Amino acid sequence: MSENIVIIGAVAVGPKAGCRYKRLRQDGNVTLIDQDEIISYGGCGIPYFISGDVSDESELRSTSFHMVRDERFFEEDKGVKALPATKALKIDRESKTVRIQDKNGNESDLPYDKLVIGVGTRPKELNIPGTSLKNIYKVGNLHDAMMIKQLVTSGKVEKAVVIGGGFIGLEMAEALADMWQIETSVVEYCDQVMPGFVSKNLSRMAQRRMEEEGVSFYLDESVEAIEGKASVERVKTNKRTIDADLVIMAVGIGPNTELAKAAGLEVAPGGFLVVNDHMQTSDPDIYAGGDCVQIKNLITGKPGYFPLGSMANRQGRVIGTNMAGGDAFFKGAVGSFVVKTFDMALAGAGLSVQTALKEGFDAVGIQVAQFDRAHFYPEKEIIYLELVVDRKTRRVLGIQGFGGENSGMFARVNAVASILQYHPTVDAVSNLELAYSPPFASAMDIVNALGNAAENFLDGRYQPMEQDEFEECWKNRDKDECVYLDCRAYADAKVFEEKYPGVWKSIPHNELAQRMDEVPKDKKLILVCNTGVRSYEAQINLKEHGFDTVSVGAGVASLKQYGMDFDTDK
Amino acid sequence: MSENIVIIGAVAVGPKAGCRYKRLRQDGNVTLIDQDEIISYGGCGIPYFISGDVSDESELRSTSFHMVRDERFFEEDKGVKALPATKALKIDRESKTVRIQDKNGNESDLPYDKLVIGVGTRPKELNIPGTSLKNIYKVGNLHDAMMIKQLVTSGKVEKAVVIGGGFIGLEMAEALADMWQIETSVVEYCDQVMPGFVSKNLSRMAQRRMEEEGVSFYLDESVEAIEGKASVERVKTNKRTIDADLVIMAVGIGPNTELAKAAGLEVAPGGFLVVNDHMQTSDPDIYAGGDCVQIKNLITGKPGYFPLGSMANRQGRVIGTNMAGGDAFFKGAVGSFVVKTFDMALAGAGLSVQTALKEGFDAVGIQVAQFDRAHFYPEKEIIYLELVVDRKTRRVLGIQGFGGENSGMFARVNAVASILQYHPTVDAVSNLELAYSPPFASAMDIVNALGNAAENFLDGRYQPMEQDEFEECWKNRDKDECVYLDCRAYADAKVFEEKYPGVWKSIPHNELAQRMDEVPKDKKLILVCNTGVRSYEAQINLKEHGFDTVSVGAGVASLKQYGMDFDTDK
Repeated sequence: MSENIVIIGAVAVGPKAGCRYKRLRQDGNVTLIDQDEIISYGGCGIPYFISGDVSDESELRSTSFHMVRDERFFEEDKGVKALPATKALKIDRESKTVRIQDKNGNESDLPYDKLVIGVGTRPKELNIPGTSLKNIYKVGNLHDAMMIKQLVTSGKVEKAVVIGGGFIGLEMAEALADMWQIETSVVEYCDQVMPGFVSKNLSRMAQRRMEEEGVSFYLDESVEAIEGKASVERVKTNKRTIDADLVIMAVGIGPNTELAKAAGLEVAPGGFLVVNDHMQTSDPDIYAGGDCVQIKNLITGKPGYFPLGSMANRQGRVIGTNMAGGDAFFKGAVGSFVVKTFDMALAGAGLSVQTALKEGFDAVGIQVAQFDRAHFYPEKEIIYLELVVDRKTRRVLGIQGFGGENSGMFARVNAVASILQYHPTVDAVSNLELAYSPPFASAMDIVNALGNAAENFLDGRYQPMEQDEFEECWKNRDKDECVYLDCRAYADAKVFEEKYPGVWKSIPHNELAQRMDEVPKDKKLILVCNTGVRSYEAQINLKEHGFDTVSVGAGVASLKQYGMDFDTDK
Repeated sequence: MSENIVIIGAVAVGPKAGCRYKRLRQDGNVTLIDQDEIISYGGCGIPYFISGDVSDESELRSTSFHMVRDERFFEEDKGVKALPATKALKIDRESKTVRIQDKNGNESDLPYDKLVIGVGTRPKELNIPGTSLKNIYKVGNLHDAMMIKQLVTSGKVEKAVVIGGGFIGLEMAEALADMWQIETSVVEYCDQVMPGFVSKNLSRMAQRRMEEEGVSFYLDESVEAIEGKASVERVKTNKRTIDADLVIMAVGIGPNTELAKAAGLEVAPGGFLVVNDHMQTSDPDIYAGGDCVQIKNLITGKPGYFPLGSMANRQGRVIGTNMAGGDAFFKGAVGSFVVKTFDMALAGAGLSVQTALKEGFDAVGIQVAQFDRAHFYPEKEIIYLELVVDRKTRRVLGIQGFGGENSGMFARVNAVASILQYHPTVDAVSNLELAYSPPFASAMDIVNALGNAAENFLDGRYQPMEQDEFEECWKNRDKDECVYLDCRAYADAKVFEEKYPGVWKSIPHNELAQRMDEVPKDKKLILVCNTGVRSYEAQINLKEHGFDTVSVGAGVASLKQYGMDFDTDK
């Protein structure tokens, strides 16, 4: 007798699970239900639909060969019955049925042998006055997206406030500012964008790039009210009032797991469904995946949360395989991510240094800056990587990077992301074997240089200074406690030395041995060069002569990306 | 007392080992000798110097901060004594000295506590008549490069023959044809370019791309003589005579290890030095690295050979650390590589399918074609990946790819290359966690699709057909033994069906269930669509109805890249 597979939720994990099952078991009956009339769309593409990069909403619902994934597609191409605009009212685990209600309000019971829950999440709402005003949107589904796009294309939006500086917040801010020239502000509760994902230093590089494109950021600031008559007119934070005729609320998500909970399935604090590595819930005939489940964090070994379409797709395949009698695993995630910020991108995997510290690791983040390709090759750009390592065990806990959207940064982060599941120590990064030829990489590639820098730090040979520490020192440069020793060629250092006499001192590294007596003995020495290579060499030479120094690890290049203005162009 | 470190060979591994040692042990004396007056250059950049991408040879000898790495640089910046134009005549392991001869012919003995051999290789010479004619060059060092560049910039070269279709051969052919508009032919002894590195199918894609740019290829062909009066005029192969006023010989390399052999150090067949994972030769006080050593192949566990500047640099650092009393390892290599062919690239790691078969694996190569980014994102391109797996153990033995030089192909190959050292099985590729967002990857990324396709093959669900098999069948299409069932939309299939009646048949996949009775029952069925997704689905549907079929795994897209001309544009 053929099996009945019922799938609640038809956006990402559900369709993938159903179609995979059907390919393995052509005799099975698969029914896909969703309360929405729009199913199977690429939700991650919403910001690009709003920006106009993706011109029509149907493209987010289409296959690579331009077929819209509607009921007919699922029926004809996949042999899967799709029931859009159909609500799941109750899961009865005793009778193994799902009570459903169609768009006309008619109720019936769908029997299942195996059930899949892929119901996703809904955007959180801020509990503040004014959230019911017009032109306040969340980015929860394609309907939201279409309404936002309609509004921005109407030309009526001049000023927008995005609440939340995470993935969706940044992507939406870019979409509004870049394509629609809307004066856009991002308000973020934490003291950095992408909190939890990258260090403050890397986050500042992305923020600065967005600021150059006209996006304003208000960090460490909480929204207290939204004001207006019928429509939104202003956003009030604890520090200011910002005019706005559009508000995007991107303050996190919560799982749609009430139904599962009511059916007695095990749910973790926060509401996410608990699943094993076969993607089974506490009821082995009920599977769950996608944004509504918690997944093991392969770095910490603890439950984690990774709401990404890529996870949902891979989990869906595992579910499909297992429902068909296979034995597929989803072991967990290292938390790889990438977010485009205009022509640059932030990416990473594993733990950021702050998250690692919170998790109890003796963590440190080591940065390097280097060209992504051979420095003699004409096309190249400086990219920034940060390796998060545990001091005691030398274990690699994460990697994050900032660089051009088409730079080699993405490949480097992915290469390290790929090995994180094996719990490598830092020597694995020093020796990571990336494909080499000058148009693609350096002979000592930046990813290896990153491992080397971390090793040198762990071995006590390298004392780096990061951008935020530099900024703090620099603010106090009049106190005359520090000297900034510039190890670059004099031609590069000259303008700094002239502008900051007594504070900034040029001793090119190749002259250091001869000019050792010029090195100030009674001040804190901060060594700089362009990307940190010469200042590291100088640090070693100076240590041999009894000087304790710090070296700006990723150099002046990184300070400029970070937004330090030395005012040397004037 | 301070140690004496002597390093023979000052191109890549030697300078890195010496400088790393010196950073760890400022008290040591490091002497770097090289028979050449030019030292420490990026040999891998030679093709880009010849093309003009790198305008001056000094750029290949410079740091990223534009200092030429000459004697003075090593002295002032690194504290390392460099002796260019100095020959090593003999290593005396008893007295721990190296007999050297300076450029004036004066001999002396350099005492060492630790010795490093990083003498590299020399290009092989073909044992055929005519090799002493003028304008025949190898690409062994910067002198060769400067002579070639001088010749091509003189405008006197109209036709060139490159002997050898490996890395250097392809890079040189591109340099000559692209920038100097020289009519360039490549003659290769094997039946494909990049033999041993990629499958014949992928190699054909790169070859075809180069042919579009005017490069001619003569494969499976051996050069028997070079002819001319004073200078080269013609190259004679076993099949034809090709006019040439420049010949580049890129037919492999042999190690410069006579000195080491004479000193009694263990040398493998082929002449490469045997080293342990600390990079020590059979004499623990003598280290060796770079192109003159053999290194463990981490896939096969056997000795391997990986002559790349990136290897040399990383090995140099390991040697420097160990000489300074550290404990660093170089465990071996998986053989990652990338080669640019105009605006496209071939890359890979691990074993190609042919190499894996030779090594005794029950290997198969599974290809996929897919966009490198979300298919709805405007900037994207189709890339081609091939996973080499062992049927019995499901172990991943290698990955190779072809795609745009700035496409996501490089990142995918590197991600899989990074995990090869851990001996993954195919499920690790299915679940490899690349960073996802639509401008960078697909929700079911091509690398995961690659793992999935390999799993489906290993599980007997997927019967692919590769391009060379297709080509063979297609040649015999008049024999009426096969039908090409086109699963694409009718609009795409129509022109094929009209041009090849009875041979090519359109049944769009979504109509297949209804039109099952139209499927020919007495012929071999070859299923095609654009990238293999719909033809795979059709294969499953057809199997359910009793049809055994093959599906062109990477679709019509790959057939076109491969060079199949269906003549449908006319």
